[in-house]
Amino acid sequence: MPAQAALRTRRRSFYPHGTAHAMRWSDNDQYGHVNNSVYAFLIDSVVNEYLIASCGLSPSPSPSPSSEARIGLVVASYCHYFAPLAFPERVRLGLAVRRIGASSVEYEVGFFRDVAAADDDDEQQVCAVGGFTHVFVDRHTRRPVGRIDGALRAGLERILVREEARL
Amino acid sequence: MPAQAALRTRRRSFYPHGTAHAMRWSDNDQYGHVNNSVYAFLIDSVVNEYLIASCGLSPSPSPSPSSEARIGLVVASYCHYFAPLAFPERVRLGLAVRRIGASSVEYEVGFFRDVAAADDDDEQQVCAVGGFTHVFVDRHTRRPVGRIDGALRAGLERILVREEARL
Amino acid sequence: MPAQAALRTRRRSFYPHGTAHAMRWSDNDQYGHVNNSVYAFLIDSVVNEYLIASCGLSPSPSPSPSSEARIGLVVASYCHYFAPLAFPERVRLGLAVRRIGASSVEYEVGFFRDVAAADDDDEQQVCAVGGFTHVFVDRHTRRPVGRIDGALRAGLERILVREEARL
Amino acid sequence: MPAQAALRTRRRSFYPHGTAHAMRWSDNDQYGHVNNSVYAFLIDSVVNEYLIASCGLSPSPSPSPSSEARIGLVVASYCHYFAPLAFPERVRLGLAVRRIGASSVEYEVGFFRDVAAADDDDEQQVCAVGGFTHVFVDRHTRRPVGRIDGALRAGLERILVREEARL
Repeated sequence: MPAQAALRTRRRSFYPHGTAHAMRWSDNDQYGHVNNSVYAFLIDSVVNEYLIASCGLSPSPSPSPSSEARIGLVVASYCHYFAPLAFPERVRLGLAVRRIGASSVEYEVGFFRDVAAADDDDEQQVCAVGGFTHVFVDRHTRRPVGRIDGALRAGLERILVREEARL
Repeated sequence: MPAQAALRTRRRSFYPHGTAHAMRWSDNDQYGHVNNSVYAFLIDSVVNEYLIASCGLSPSPSPSPSSEARIGLVVASYCHYFAPLAFPERVRLGLAVRRIGASSVEYEVGFFRDVAAADDDDEQQVCAVGGFTHVFVDRHTRRPVGRIDGALRAGLERILVREEARL
Repeated sequence: MPAQAALRTRRRSFYPHGTAHAMRWSDNDQYGHVNNSVYAFLIDSVVNEYLIASCGLSPSPSPSPSSEARIGLVVASYCHYFAPLAFPERVRLGLAVRRIGASSVEYEVGFFRDVAAADDDDEQQVCAVGGFTHVFVDRHTRRPVGRIDGALRAGLERILVREEARL
Repeated sequence: MPAQAALRTRRRSFYPHGTAHAMRWSDNDQYGHVNNSVYAFLIDSVVNEYLIASCGLSPSPSPSPSSEARIGLVVASYCHYFAPLAFPERVRLGLAVRRIGASSVEYEVGFFRDVAAADDDDEQQVCAVGGFTHVFVDRHTRRPVGRIDGALRAGLERILVREEARL
């Protein structure tokens, strides 16, 4: 993953895809802000929303015969927290794919406070940046797929922000 | 609470207040639909959002001196589930106050699938109806307040759907 | 469900089955006690633990051919809260089946604070009592089963506390 | 944090402190295993349990005048997942402090499947290793404390596994 200092300067326009989620009452812990664990729920949500909507993923336990036979399992995750969020805020989640490997994919998600701001309003400070690595496996055998291709690859590449852009 | 048969016929227009929440990946349990426990998180969220925005409630652990000294504690809750919801759906939550007692308030929340539908589109079937009873207590002593009044009462009355309307 | 007054007097010995769960840091909300929604997670857990261990239930998304073809879907739930719980407490969950219908089952769960107390130590006050109704359906068609029988019925009957015992 | 390869070989005896937690029904996502986000809830729980029991931490929103004025805020977290866990398993959580800085502390938690195994049974494979960094701040000002000392430091040092032990 990139160094923490680089992540702290992320802006909304860095992320090719974005969506909004509302915080829930129970997300606040007894210190009155969103508990660190909740960020992982939201990262998981924005990634899977994108995989379902734009990459043909079908996570249903009873998929149709024609549906995608691959599912993504999380093998590593991280998050850096720069400023607190709190219910009842709504949060803007920016999503980028950072690397597509043989059978694995790395995602990065930025958390921004003001969901009403324009997508290119780069005055907004990032509140947190996290991500995880998916290994794509066959739904039944749970063994890694040989190669990420087809609609899955096409969807992932549409939001890929290449390594060289990290600097 | 009203009989289950009555709840099953709830329509969007029954609820004076409404908001939208996105389902999260982890809300789906291993049967592939939103787990029953998650509905309670959402009921809690829509009620507290309304109390903060429209009734002067300040749930922060470090409230300002001028802030509302009362907090609401849940003493009873229920939910009836009529049709499944699933991530990545977004859900419309309708909120009504059903009763304002000496120190307690009963809320009812209806869950509707299509967040994009018009608020008075009553063709939409209700997916679940739940609610809970708050007892308002002093933040520090945790003893019930004598009477629900002021901005709190005014806000609650604005979305009160009286008993006679139940039939 | 029984009246709230009756539930408030529940004792540990009322429940034929019991297990312990640890509270989690995030279970406490910003009022410093376990959020009401969390009780539903625990009720779900003790019921499903019992169904898996003692009734042959196989909730896995990839069940073996010989496994139980029925799954239980929650159609109604409730909880009454009498005294707060808080992380880092451990809680004793008592479980009883209250009714076995044609395709539905009603469960009741009592929450007790001191997990180290003896099972028949009825000096312990109950902190909360909740429950839900399962409708058992075929895993694939999601239609109610004709009759609850076999290992499922036998397991449920072992912890049945009949209606007449309610008084 | 140590390299992933080193983490994969962690054994129970590496961790000076340990506790057990039960998985909950809702922890399993629709792939039938514990969702990655849940590990963060458990890491948070074992760390805070230890801080409360052994380091004098008082996270209550209404602390007594004599209680610890410092609270720990999470600024960075990570987890590596080596083998799946699933409800209704119980899990053994091993806890070590890895670094004590000026106002920050790094923790590492290992997840082991068999809670009944002896603490020094190093045949057990680790299922996941994660952790986070706490910055200790004043409860009211939320500014970093000058130095970690007193009962807090003493408790943390008791489970410190120094850098050199990493190799």
